[in-house]
Amino acid sequence: MSTEKLALTTNSGARKPASAGGANALAADLTRALGPRKVLSNLSERLNYRYDAIQFGATPLAVVLPESTEDVVTAVRAARAAGVPIVGRGAASGLSGGAAPLEPGLVISFTRMTRLTIHQGRREATAQAGVVTLAVTEAARPHGLIYPPDPASFRTSTIGGNLAENAGGPMCFKYGVSGDYVRALEFVDADGEVHRLTRDVFDLAGLLIGSEGTLGLITEATLRLIPPPKFTRTLMAHFPEVGACAEAVSRAIAAGAVPSKLEFMDRACTNAVEDYLHLGLPRDAEAVLLVDTDGEDLDTVQDELRLVEDACVASGGTVRRAATDDEGAQLWRARRSVSPALGRIRPQRMNEDIVVPRSALPDVVREIRALGDASPFPVVQFGHIGDGNLHPNILFDPRTEDAHAVHDLAHRIALVAIRHGGVLSGEHGIGSMKRDFMTDAVDPETLTALRGVKRALDPSAALNPGKILPAEEVMVDG
Amino acid sequence: MSTEKLALTTNSGARKPASAGGANALAADLTRALGPRKVLSNLSERLNYRYDAIQFGATPLAVVLPESTEDVVTAVRAARAAGVPIVGRGAASGLSGGAAPLEPGLVISFTRMTRLTIHQGRREATAQAGVVTLAVTEAARPHGLIYPPDPASFRTSTIGGNLAENAGGPMCFKYGVSGDYVRALEFVDADGEVHRLTRDVFDLAGLLIGSEGTLGLITEATLRLIPPPKFTRTLMAHFPEVGACAEAVSRAIAAGAVPSKLEFMDRACTNAVEDYLHLGLPRDAEAVLLVDTDGEDLDTVQDELRLVEDACVASGGTVRRAATDDEGAQLWRARRSVSPALGRIRPQRMNEDIVVPRSALPDVVREIRALGDASPFPVVQFGHIGDGNLHPNILFDPRTEDAHAVHDLAHRIALVAIRHGGVLSGEHGIGSMKRDFMTDAVDPETLTALRGVKRALDPSAALNPGKILPAEEVMVDG
Repeated sequence: MSTEKLALTTNSGARKPASAGGANALAADLTRALGPRKVLSNLSERLNYRYDAIQFGATPLAVVLPESTEDVVTAVRAARAAGVPIVGRGAASGLSGGAAPLEPGLVISFTRMTRLTIHQGRREATAQAGVVTLAVTEAARPHGLIYPPDPASFRTSTIGGNLAENAGGPMCFKYGVSGDYVRALEFVDADGEVHRLTRDVFDLAGLLIGSEGTLGLITEATLRLIPPPKFTRTLMAHFPEVGACAEAVSRAIAAGAVPSKLEFMDRACTNAVEDYLHLGLPRDAEAVLLVDTDGEDLDTVQDELRLVEDACVASGGTVRRAATDDEGAQLWRARRSVSPALGRIRPQRMNEDIVVPRSALPDVVREIRALGDASPFPVVQFGHIGDGNLHPNILFDPRTEDAHAVHDLAHRIALVAIRHGGVLSGEHGIGSMKRDFMTDAVDPETLTALRGVKRALDPSAALNPGKILPAEEVMVDG
Repeated sequence: MSTEKLALTTNSGARKPASAGGANALAADLTRALGPRKVLSNLSERLNYRYDAIQFGATPLAVVLPESTEDVVTAVRAARAAGVPIVGRGAASGLSGGAAPLEPGLVISFTRMTRLTIHQGRREATAQAGVVTLAVTEAARPHGLIYPPDPASFRTSTIGGNLAENAGGPMCFKYGVSGDYVRALEFVDADGEVHRLTRDVFDLAGLLIGSEGTLGLITEATLRLIPPPKFTRTLMAHFPEVGACAEAVSRAIAAGAVPSKLEFMDRACTNAVEDYLHLGLPRDAEAVLLVDTDGEDLDTVQDELRLVEDACVASGGTVRRAATDDEGAQLWRARRSVSPALGRIRPQRMNEDIVVPRSALPDVVREIRALGDASPFPVVQFGHIGDGNLHPNILFDPRTEDAHAVHDLAHRIALVAIRHGGVLSGEHGIGSMKRDFMTDAVDPETLTALRGVKRALDPSAALNPGKILPAEEVMVDG
């Protein structure tokens, strides 16, 4: 196997398309530099690294499993020398195609970079990119601390992936999203240079967070930890109408409640879960609301739950309080089971992540329902209603149903959000699935600025090409 | 007065030096476009816009007092057409020279852009750049909400200036800095284009925050509000040794206390305040600590204060608890009077803003004291000890003392922080005062990345030139 195919292309600054021969040369070069244990080059192995939780992409030419930042540097330099794109990947549980490569190239899978240190006195964790999200709290809890961000996938997702997508979760209404917990960041740039950043003037770290691996590869983060709330209380409410549910939430917040979780499921979603688990959920309700309050002081936590209960009743809702922590966990089982429940209806789903002003929620939910009813696809809605973050899901079977029709419906749902003053993504990222909608969501001047920043940090467009920013041609046409 | 001097220079992309004639032409052009009420062109008026709270700069060629974002766009376009730099300015209470122009050009003073709207249901405020920081909380309080960031200057400083510097304050240990409260941002870029951003993927808004007007001019922000804590309790402790004070703070935090404020004054600082106000402060103490705990529940707030008290006593401190809110306010008067007290010693001061690991504080304070003792200048130290954010101040008289010697001492103090794993700025920004130290604090690869981002958003270097990023020559020599 010749290494001559690894001729440097950095002079021209342009990537050259890699051939299958180039792939083998790349894998050989990587194996020589990193040893065979850290490189996957067989097709059967590489096939496993072409997708995330929602989208299939291109089969990578080689996969590197780095064990250190130095390994990442070596891999990036080899990929750049070979002129192939580079895609970072954590647990690949993302829901926007962020970790699915769009072109054959190098995938860097961070699952072996799992070093995790808890600094009790500083209330910080230092976590390599491959540390599983839940592991941070598990390691911190004996020290009386937790890491609050709780994306649905937090039992498998990684810190690197969470930060690349700036993931949220139910706790984020009260406690903030992943990026809010980052005190410092290490990343490897497109040239293989290592940067160590605090959250300082010119917040480059903040720019990396949520950039989906398009500006650099996050290798390690210093995360802020907090003491866990001493008490948590739970209620479930259901409403004859979605507007009444949104109204109850606004009323409770205006009355002074800051629930730690505020989750909404529409009728189609509730019925999907009920079909699956038979929990006795109210099948006729147009909206089910799940609420946690938490804090240091039980009286305050109960007072806050009472504010929420009063608001629900005043808005025409029916309330069920959990009497015990076990009953609370039981109520939350409904919300946590949404994903498997939907998987029983159709094998695949397009999962939107829109955020709209809470006051617009009734109209938005109604308009999206109408779009779903007029389409051939089941559409269900659920999400973090406190933030106005809604997840309309289009369920479909890619073997028998038209992907273009799904994409078209997803686009029309996105336009509903934008028309009501909303944005495309609350916590899942843009990835490849929603990048075409960016021209609707972001004005041309700002897209130009984003493109300028991308070019400044990745002039050869080697990092996760095809994500977030729409193709330039779209701009010219628009 | 001819307008021919306003010939467009945007083709070349380079700024041309403005002559006095250009200045007059610029002022005339601005007056024609905006009306005479919004433009200051007399020398006596312009002289007032050359400084911030700590540094004199160049006298601007013209000053615009915009009343709307459209006025800002007009002003930016005129300045670009005239080829002169543009510096934004709020209340000019900054402490790093951020708002002091280094070259003659256009100053845009935002003090008339004071529109402020409170959205109770959304718990948000929409504030134009010129809104005074304290005014946000004053307007929000009748709705049961506050805006926590509390820089020392919050009675005069503006939201635009606070965001440009990502200002902190005592409350920030528990509640976070200014940028943590920004939900959306409007800014005008170097070409006069208006951008409206939420905190989204590719967090351009986050990049603007803390960029000191070098990437764009923030014109409006949507700010998150929170309910105020119901109860606050205060104590003061003093220690025979700085290390004991730092140890007490670490001990209290490790025990589970999250004080809302944790402020430190060294012996020189305490004596300066005591000379000024005669409050009965302990003149012999090497360290004075001021602490607030706050929250929803009085028992919890008092428990937390007790944790702090126990930690102080265990570390050899002497504690005085405030019995009433009035007594608490009285204790805080000492800390709030540091600036006027120092002004009585020397007319000017170089105010550092280093952040070091809390464990390094005793060594850092001791080393800085030694540097001060060996210098001809009085040096005092105080700051937000919970975050390790220290403000060593060099006091001097610019009429009789050597500015170079002050700069040299400031540099050596900055190097102490960097040697102990610290950073240059916690809340005041880099501005022009600390930009030369950036080559010590930031590695060359990251400086290159920051320069690339700056070039992408402001290719002609028209926005606040000479701030944050050190001159390129320094890089080549280093």
